[in-house]
Amino acid sequence: ASLFNTIRSNKLFEMVVVTVILFSALLTGAKTYDISPQFLTIIEWLDYSITLFFLLEISIRFFAEEKKRNFFKSAWNIFDTLIVIVSMIPIEDSELALVGRLIRIFRVLRMVSVIPELRTLLNSLLKALPQLGYVALLMFIIVYIYAAVGTTFFAHINATLWGDITVSMLTLFRVMTFEDWTDVMYETMAVYPISWVFYITFIFLNAFAFLNMLIGIVVNTMEQ
Amino acid sequence: ASLFNTIRSNKLFEMVVVTVILFSALLTGAKTYDISPQFLTIIEWLDYSITLFFLLEISIRFFAEEKKRNFFKSAWNIFDTLIVIVSMIPIEDSELALVGRLIRIFRVLRMVSVIPELRTLLNSLLKALPQLGYVALLMFIIVYIYAAVGTTFFAHINATLWGDITVSMLTLFRVMTFEDWTDVMYETMAVYPISWVFYITFIFLNAFAFLNMLIGIVVNTMEQ
Amino acid sequence: ASLFNTIRSNKLFEMVVVTVILFSALLTGAKTYDISPQFLTIIEWLDYSITLFFLLEISIRFFAEEKKRNFFKSAWNIFDTLIVIVSMIPIEDSELALVGRLIRIFRVLRMVSVIPELRTLLNSLLKALPQLGYVALLMFIIVYIYAAVGTTFFAHINATLWGDITVSMLTLFRVMTFEDWTDVMYETMAVYPISWVFYITFIFLNAFAFLNMLIGIVVNTMEQ
Amino acid sequence: ASLFNTIRSNKLFEMVVVTVILFSALLTGAKTYDISPQFLTIIEWLDYSITLFFLLEISIRFFAEEKKRNFFKSAWNIFDTLIVIVSMIPIEDSELALVGRLIRIFRVLRMVSVIPELRTLLNSLLKALPQLGYVALLMFIIVYIYAAVGTTFFAHINATLWGDITVSMLTLFRVMTFEDWTDVMYETMAVYPISWVFYITFIFLNAFAFLNMLIGIVVNTMEQ
Ligand code: NA
Ligand code: NA
Repeated sequence: ASLFNTIRSNKLFEMVVVTVILFSALLTGAKTYDISPQFLTIIEWLDYSITLFFLLEISIRFFAEEKKRNFFKSAWNIFDTLIVIVSMIPIEDSELALVGRLIRIFRVLRMVSVIPELRTLLNSLLKALPQLGYVALLMFIIVYIYAAVGTTFFAHINATLWGDITVSMLTLFRVMTFEDWTDVMYETMAVYPISWVFYITFIFLNAFAFLNMLIGIVVNTMEQ
Repeated sequence: ASLFNTIRSNKLFEMVVVTVILFSALLTGAKTYDISPQFLTIIEWLDYSITLFFLLEISIRFFAEEKKRNFFKSAWNIFDTLIVIVSMIPIEDSELALVGRLIRIFRVLRMVSVIPELRTLLNSLLKALPQLGYVALLMFIIVYIYAAVGTTFFAHINATLWGDITVSMLTLFRVMTFEDWTDVMYETMAVYPISWVFYITFIFLNAFAFLNMLIGIVVNTMEQ
Repeated sequence: ASLFNTIRSNKLFEMVVVTVILFSALLTGAKTYDISPQFLTIIEWLDYSITLFFLLEISIRFFAEEKKRNFFKSAWNIFDTLIVIVSMIPIEDSELALVGRLIRIFRVLRMVSVIPELRTLLNSLLKALPQLGYVALLMFIIVYIYAAVGTTFFAHINATLWGDITVSMLTLFRVMTFEDWTDVMYETMAVYPISWVFYITFIFLNAFAFLNMLIGIVVNTMEQ
Repeated sequence: ASLFNTIRSNKLFEMVVVTVILFSALLTGAKTYDISPQFLTIIEWLDYSITLFFLLEISIRFFAEEKKRNFFKSAWNIFDTLIVIVSMIPIEDSELALVGRLIRIFRVLRMVSVIPELRTLLNSLLKALPQLGYVALLMFIIVYIYAAVGTTFFAHINATLWGDITVSMLTLFRVMTFEDWTDVMYETMAVYPISWVFYITFIFLNAFAFLNMLIGIVVNTMEQ
């Protein structure tokens, strides 16, 4: 175990793993181009090698662990193991082939599990999530109410934008990003000239909630 | 009163109320889809049950109150009571039916009155409002002046965008959100080639006022 | 002078002045609508009254001043006096009438000179200007270089967007606001497929400079 | 050397150099307009004078340096020298003429090397870069994964937007700037109605990473 431990803690080993992950990402990218069958065969062989390398790397980290059961207590180790196992299942069927491709894409995420700084960053991101929770809930309530009101009044004007509450919420999210929101507004203003109040109040309420979220984050960050 | 008080303070009771409100919101959403008459009848019965449940809940909270007159000193209690009372008025007329639907939509807002954390958040939002007031007034003055100037010069170019001071202010708010603002600009530049100065100065003045508002908020937050 | 001073310092007097300014702004707005000749006559009479009131108010503030020469040391007093004097010049000629209308629009700015909180806010805005100066200069250099490069390569593709350095800078400002920037990009990519590098680097450089400006402001605000 | 040193440290000398650089920038801009051949000849002569002036200025700064080898240890000195040398190479060939024009454009950057405040600003910008590095890497991983998934599913819908991983990344960058992102979304929703999840999650993940970057910067700035 001490040998495995030495390898695992080795900075060079980390760099080799990162390089292989980057190479794996490049392969994923390369496959999206029109490539000759010969090159595709090479890529597939490289793909097998990467899977093998990942299997080897996981094994080293597993054997380096003092208590084997602790290994699977880390969510990242489970993620890494799953990626390797699913990559190893031979798939011929076209539907499963798609799943296989997606799994290969998510191998890039292994970067986060291997580079300690990224792992730290992601952890601090996840820690910040709950403090955003209640503002997010408030904004969701705002969007929900406006979507219900919007569907009630505008559904007969444009069913694609206001047909039911789901599409209305999507439309309002679009208004929040200012994406061609005046086109949406002018269309309903043709029927209800006063409907600009609906959009302006919606934008201000959201801007206000968003501003407050920023303040909350700054204050929270200060106190720590 | 102590029994009602026990129920009111019960965490489980709060969760049941939140669940019913969420369920009520889902019903509101469901009604925006094309649904069969049978399902509509079920929804209406569920709607009556929700109103009854809300009546029961308000009563519990009312009887839990030591001094009954304090109950109506809370704006949230008045809001909750109004929602329940208006929901109970039987409405057949199509115009009033619309009001009834809107009232049912606003029941989602009861979420804020029931979850203490959301109530706290909204209170801190309202406390932040006056400190934003003077910057908002300054931005309004900027928009008003530009709208008056815009109407004076551009009304004959495009009456839909610059016809009177109200639509000019709406157009300028659109320019503030960067929504297809170059289309607006290119149109007036065809007549007055120098009119880009109007838009660029407007954008910079607003960006500057907005930046200052951010600073003001950060400083105010720090001092507390 | 002490009587004038008492009037000037009176809170009621300030409110009356603010009300008249607001009323003057409403008149300015009203004139942008299609109004009957009778109503227009009324508005013109109201306009004269406002000018007279402003003349009276300025006089009170002037006579309230201990040392008369200090009165014109304040930029706001000069601004107020100019607005009143120009409003009083009788204008019939259509070209000068336009100037007269503009002057009446700028009367809304008197709000800033009358409300002390707005005056304080504007002063702090002006104080923040120089600290933004060097970042603004850096961003201008970035825009200038990209505009020169853009004109060199893209002028023959679309002369309206890239014809000379002025319109190129306007186009790049548009790209900075993300306004239909991909339309601009796709057009040049049809000729130079690599030209996306031009836009992406431009956006990142500006975002980076803008981020730095924000940091600079926060740090400066902290230190005070 | 002390004479050269006196000139170099002279504030007037700095202002003359800045003026010449500004003048050089104006010339660059002037050349993008349609100008008469006579004026072009004048501009070319002015151009030679500027190059000569820059040569003189560099020489003064070089001879003012105590240890000549330290001169080339400053990146800015190397940049300045290169600009001057390349400007002096006589070019007739049309391809090289383009390079010559670009070099003349980049002369504006000499502003940064001459004005000490801008040099300080740029240095602080460069110091802030590494602290942004890991967040940038995380955002790149997000974009890469979404681009790979997007290419897998949407390539057959619109090859211009999703044809290979490079254009998919460009399309996703466009979605990040909210530039007509709903057009992109509605197109794929016509085939996969559920694909709005792809865009909404992408926007939220990026907004979240960006927010975290802002916090990180504020915290880092505070600690210094
Ligand atoms: Na747009
Ligand atoms: Na936009």
